[in-house]
Amino acid sequence: MGYPDTFEGFCVDSPKTWSTFHKQEIKPKPFGDHDVDVQIECCGVCGSDVHTVTGGWGDYEGPLCVGHEVIGHAVNVGKEVKGIKKGDRVGVGAQVWSCLKCELCKSKNENYCPHLVDTYNASYEDGSKAHGGFANYIRAHEYFVFKIPDALSSHEAAPLLCAGITTYSPLVRANIGPGKKVAVCGIGGLGHLGLQWSKALGAETYALTHSPNKVEEAKKLGAKEVIVTTEKDWAKPLAFKFDFVLNCSDMTSEFDLSTYFSILKVGGEFHMVGLPDKPLPELQAMTFASNAVKLTGSHLGNHQEMDAMLKLAAEKGISPMVETIEVSEAGIKTAIQRVHKNDVRYRFTLTGFNKAFGSK
Amino acid sequence: MGYPDTFEGFCVDSPKTWSTFHKQEIKPKPFGDHDVDVQIECCGVCGSDVHTVTGGWGDYEGPLCVGHEVIGHAVNVGKEVKGIKKGDRVGVGAQVWSCLKCELCKSKNENYCPHLVDTYNASYEDGSKAHGGFANYIRAHEYFVFKIPDALSSHEAAPLLCAGITTYSPLVRANIGPGKKVAVCGIGGLGHLGLQWSKALGAETYALTHSPNKVEEAKKLGAKEVIVTTEKDWAKPLAFKFDFVLNCSDMTSEFDLSTYFSILKVGGEFHMVGLPDKPLPELQAMTFASNAVKLTGSHLGNHQEMDAMLKLAAEKGISPMVETIEVSEAGIKTAIQRVHKNDVRYRFTLTGFNKAFGSK
Repeated sequence: MGYPDTFEGFCVDSPKTWSTFHKQEIKPKPFGDHDVDVQIECCGVCGSDVHTVTGGWGDYEGPLCVGHEVIGHAVNVGKEVKGIKKGDRVGVGAQVWSCLKCELCKSKNENYCPHLVDTYNASYEDGSKAHGGFANYIRAHEYFVFKIPDALSSHEAAPLLCAGITTYSPLVRANIGPGKKVAVCGIGGLGHLGLQWSKALGAETYALTHSPNKVEEAKKLGAKEVIVTTEKDWAKPLAFKFDFVLNCSDMTSEFDLSTYFSILKVGGEFHMVGLPDKPLPELQAMTFASNAVKLTGSHLGNHQEMDAMLKLAAEKGISPMVETIEVSEAGIKTAIQRVHKNDVRYRFTLTGFNKAFGSK
Repeated sequence: MGYPDTFEGFCVDSPKTWSTFHKQEIKPKPFGDHDVDVQIECCGVCGSDVHTVTGGWGDYEGPLCVGHEVIGHAVNVGKEVKGIKKGDRVGVGAQVWSCLKCELCKSKNENYCPHLVDTYNASYEDGSKAHGGFANYIRAHEYFVFKIPDALSSHEAAPLLCAGITTYSPLVRANIGPGKKVAVCGIGGLGHLGLQWSKALGAETYALTHSPNKVEEAKKLGAKEVIVTTEKDWAKPLAFKFDFVLNCSDMTSEFDLSTYFSILKVGGEFHMVGLPDKPLPELQAMTFASNAVKLTGSHLGNHQEMDAMLKLAAEKGISPMVETIEVSEAGIKTAIQRVHKNDVRYRFTLTGFNKAFGSK
């Protein structure tokens, strides 16, 4: 067998062997009238991939093909597909399907559809499995396939499909723009994009980091000031200052949250997009009474936000800082292990798919 | 000594003897140009009083005079006082002072002023102590003294000064009104007012209770439907239904919060005004990603909200359900103990202050 009946992907077997990937055949869902097949050119490596393969977010059944920051070309489009045509350079993020019929889907919240299908480690209603982008092809519903503006290079566009939308959507949903003060906490794969969005949207933007050696880079990425959170009493001068904290840290479980909350204005939002394996630190209801802080999080963004984000990135020259690695058993092992130990500035994109899969 | 140099109040000595009150002399702050002295007619008994005297919210040094739902008459007003005149029937809530100069005070958030003085168990900047309303008099800054509309009886108005504003303010700050769906969780001293405000503001209002025997009463108080949360799968039919949950429960530490969160629309608010002694149940950052729920709380309300609430209560005939008890060592013991074991429907007001204190 082979395309279009089967794809090939690098898969992991179980949490015990989480950094060992083998190339093998994978079976996509049956091709539907609204589906688009994408021949993959490159794929970002996301913290979610690591949380998933290590079992940090729960056990799974292998073989599992992860990867949800996919860039490639549409090679086959279903007969009902309207927005994408064969040959288009497109991206696929962390969601490949939703019902498009429920109240959530109809109100531009398809990223919260109760029936949604994640890009991998997920099943369709017919029992077919969804497979990620460490593969030669991916199949997705057209609503979750996005045209990539020419101004963006593929390996830099890839991380926008998950890290980008995850940090962009909460900012625009909170009406961040001129006159607002935003702090981006945790300058890594997510945060280094969050800084750029916040600045581009017109907010007065600050960075919070526990790494003194990220101060200069954070300024270049858009921070007016950088606060090093290992310094004593760092939060005191910031009391009641911010409208919004975009918390991109993967270490929130170690935070003194009441200190972080204290830097927000009354009713301000502490928005978590980093999703650690460990639970949040213990919280008292009373902690929220000091400034009516709103503790929240989110899941990706909607179709319109993805298009708007890609347009903004193209117009303002926003891109992630990317290190490329060859897609191969060795390359994936290196990338996954380095993301696991937070040894990346700030994002990996796997490339060389034609070579790995002997594609046309 | 005696008024105006000293007041008399029923005081508790320590958490060990939390239901034993003795009448004794208390020393108010020096009378200032913006102060109002109120001769007390009645005082509500609040859950906060019980959390405080039991030491649930932390240790304290006695003798401590609690009570922050005060109604009485102004008997002395400072020379700069503008809004209150001698003889006015007035109320004092859970806050008696703020700086009125900081950014928070100037933006109608004096209830979050970093320098604010609570009505009791608190000190002024000059070291004077603030004393609560289980007493013959209370002294407060005019900005925290509110005229009571004639339509409200004193013993019913009293609980509005804390329980009322605590439940009213978060609703109006969230723009609750026609077209919004609100669930009030926990039908007790706070919740039975929350239901009435939500209905009066025009929202489609629901009640959540673990007590099947509160169903009929909750409907009379404004609930369109009442959901009994001890029933299996109670939350399933409510998925993504509400704009706002006003959580008035004192038992949030026992909740499966992800189930409660699931009934909110995307970006909806789970607002806690009940403040249990115990911490919240363990939470994962990922729990917030299911619907971008905003977990929050608040502290009282501002001056304008207090006036608006009292006006709304007078116009719409909203009042707490009140059981009156004589202010005395025995009466206070009964009231405090019964609130502690949640044996009240739904609020106590202490009365008979003239008799207890031999006042004019």
